[in-house]
Amino acid sequence: MLPTEVLATYVVDSEFDALPIDVVIEAKRALLNYLGCALGGSIESALSIAITTLAPFSGKPTACVLGRSERFDALHAALLNGIGSHVHEYDDTTPKNYVHPSVPVASALFAYASANLVSGKDFVHAFILGFEVESRIADSVYPAHYEAGWHITSTAGVFGAAAAIGRLLKLDKRQMVWAFGLAATQSAGIREMFGSMAKSFQPGRAAQNGYTAALLAQADFTAGEKALEGPRGFAEVTTGVFDASKITSGLGTDFSLRVNAYKPYACGLVVHPTIDGCSRLHTQYQPDPATITAVRLRVTPLVLDLCNQRELKRALQSKYSIYHAAAIGLVRGKGGLQEFTQAAVDDPALTRIRALTTAIPDSSITADQVHIEVDLVSGKTLTLFVEQSLGNLLNPLSDVQIEDKFRDQAVLALPPAVVEQLIQICWSIDTMVDVGTLCRVTAPHEAGIN
Amino acid sequence: MLPTEVLATYVVDSEFDALPIDVVIEAKRALLNYLGCALGGSIESALSIAITTLAPFSGKPTACVLGRSERFDALHAALLNGIGSHVHEYDDTTPKNYVHPSVPVASALFAYASANLVSGKDFVHAFILGFEVESRIADSVYPAHYEAGWHITSTAGVFGAAAAIGRLLKLDKRQMVWAFGLAATQSAGIREMFGSMAKSFQPGRAAQNGYTAALLAQADFTAGEKALEGPRGFAEVTTGVFDASKITSGLGTDFSLRVNAYKPYACGLVVHPTIDGCSRLHTQYQPDPATITAVRLRVTPLVLDLCNQRELKRALQSKYSIYHAAAIGLVRGKGGLQEFTQAAVDDPALTRIRALTTAIPDSSITADQVHIEVDLVSGKTLTLFVEQSLGNLLNPLSDVQIEDKFRDQAVLALPPAVVEQLIQICWSIDTMVDVGTLCRVTAPHEAGIN
Repeated sequence: MLPTEVLATYVVDSEFDALPIDVVIEAKRALLNYLGCALGGSIESALSIAITTLAPFSGKPTACVLGRSERFDALHAALLNGIGSHVHEYDDTTPKNYVHPSVPVASALFAYASANLVSGKDFVHAFILGFEVESRIADSVYPAHYEAGWHITSTAGVFGAAAAIGRLLKLDKRQMVWAFGLAATQSAGIREMFGSMAKSFQPGRAAQNGYTAALLAQADFTAGEKALEGPRGFAEVTTGVFDASKITSGLGTDFSLRVNAYKPYACGLVVHPTIDGCSRLHTQYQPDPATITAVRLRVTPLVLDLCNQRELKRALQSKYSIYHAAAIGLVRGKGGLQEFTQAAVDDPALTRIRALTTAIPDSSITADQVHIEVDLVSGKTLTLFVEQSLGNLLNPLSDVQIEDKFRDQAVLALPPAVVEQLIQICWSIDTMVDVGTLCRVTAPHEAGIN
Repeated sequence: MLPTEVLATYVVDSEFDALPIDVVIEAKRALLNYLGCALGGSIESALSIAITTLAPFSGKPTACVLGRSERFDALHAALLNGIGSHVHEYDDTTPKNYVHPSVPVASALFAYASANLVSGKDFVHAFILGFEVESRIADSVYPAHYEAGWHITSTAGVFGAAAAIGRLLKLDKRQMVWAFGLAATQSAGIREMFGSMAKSFQPGRAAQNGYTAALLAQADFTAGEKALEGPRGFAEVTTGVFDASKITSGLGTDFSLRVNAYKPYACGLVVHPTIDGCSRLHTQYQPDPATITAVRLRVTPLVLDLCNQRELKRALQSKYSIYHAAAIGLVRGKGGLQEFTQAAVDDPALTRIRALTTAIPDSSITADQVHIEVDLVSGKTLTLFVEQSLGNLLNPLSDVQIEDKFRDQAVLALPPAVVEQLIQICWSIDTMVDVGTLCRVTAPHEAGIN
């Protein structure tokens, strides 16, 4: 069988009881982390603009947008969930391929589950399958695909959403192959949009498009059968490189959820070591920011490729600035949502530190690391080498840290009691009779399970 | 100014009265040809499946799908117009870049005009601008982009739809730049899907996505400002090659509508010379198909890259078969819609000729040409060299031939009197007060202007 068919067969035939228990547990950590991001992003202007603009085009309001009281059709809800959950750049990442894997899959699934009866077991199963499909497709073209400038979260994510929704729709193998073809047809998203609202639109559209692909395939809307490996298929056209073994090897035994990481900071992953290290210096030495005269960073080269923005016109751009990362760590000792607002961008103390920070690429530094030197007016220099940044696979967030991260974001949208209730629901999502209940609890005007 | 901004400025500032009259006339030929294709495709199963599947997700039914009585929101109507008008592969082509330019732009525009009051003058103006934008963007990356396997009609078409709708929405320059960014974000479609329903879905989605891009930009949903030329922008990411002069040179004086061609045959353009030549042999010699023992073709190499399908499982695949092209020309002397149905695929006479036809690539043969040899059981060989295939730029369809092509398709959906009425309306579309009137006339149950 060709890789596309192998993957389709796996998704169609997979059985929940054959899933390793640690993978199910990690899925619940990912879903709690995802849901926190969706609630934290639910009040952002990118989402509000999209809601206002697209409301006249929504079908019957059968589905929830997480953290919002408005109702939409399920396809629009998938898009809007994706915008809200990705807008803060706070969602999860598999460092092996730089995919933010949960957003495209979970955004579609929560939209679906809010409009259709889905058990927690089926929901978690579909999530694991969608996560695995997008991860394997990303692996098969990484790193060339990402380096070419594709936003791999959306280009691979559309397949994950198609797989997850296709599984819930009970597609047969032939239809699942078509769903992957229709996903490939819609696979899009470029890194040029980073630092604008269009960035979070991309994984949202991937969720909506994958969902649409599954619906059309269910109705026997045909597509080419070699979506991944065909001579004009996804891999060849977008990348020119394809490692089919990454699709097929260890399928059913190796799971990408085991190498998923949760961000402690609300911004691009590659600046995390800098925030981590600068925050440690802040905590240890408590330097008065006014006494800092220079900050010198040695960073992995990708940092300057992605995050070399010093002039910040929009708040979103601050998430892609290595200079801002150093500033918030040294001045505030943290990198939560409040460190990437317009107020933070305009903060004179942060502006001053950004201006006196320099970063040079060093290929001996890994993506988990940074070397920091901070000169003080006293003539003293603070030095730190970060070996393993907080939140990466060797230094992961604990369940309690994920809960705390959830609280920090969710309280922006919901009363504390509902926030605590949602944490408890999430940890037992796999036992729910109807996941739609959870979705409805996230609506601000509905304070309890209804 | 960078190319993206140059193009946005042009679209925002263009004045109808500065358009050359021949370009306006050619726009009307293109629109009549487009509308015929939309009506001919309006009863196809690809469209019917999409309508049935997506109806539950449609917003308020304010917009028409051409040739159908159902109503949808305008974004869905754009998608569905695109599927219907492209499904027969009978729409127009600019041979310089293999784009089918009218479908993405006109599908969005007719959807918009059926739900919003638009004058014929504004409509034609927006069509010309959208056509020009997608053509120039395609030119800037052609041929590498197409050769890589992109379905250039949809990847470039999304920009055309964004420009056309953006113009009608009166976007300012900054918003138009964002609309192009949001179009780039959604630019997708691969040639692996050729020969399946997913093919016509691609330009339909481009129409819908471009329309969406314009709506979001109007609401100040931000995007990156270097959609085309940025280091991670459309050209670099999809192609790695970008000729910026194709975007900017002759803007406002050179128009791609002047090099638009209308297909006389309902299939991929590259097999047209073969249908044309074989039809001429059919007319001239009237050979009994049973007496044909071998058909040898020498074709431009791209033909075998695109149309080397001999085993035809689906009717749509017949549009990509050089062997089927030879068969319908020799046996039936034409290549209308009826030559690409399942009945045609299963026709024993056509099946027999397909099996005994061979084609070899010859780089001395252009895309307008073919060399044909037909062996007869008598020992005689019929030979023909086609220098300029019917319908190409040096041998274009006349207005009367475009009208005849319109009639052949439109009668599948509408009574003859309405068909004639639509032809008259189309030729004076630039004087209409409300183009929505035209859209509503195409609905089967509405027999006159309402």
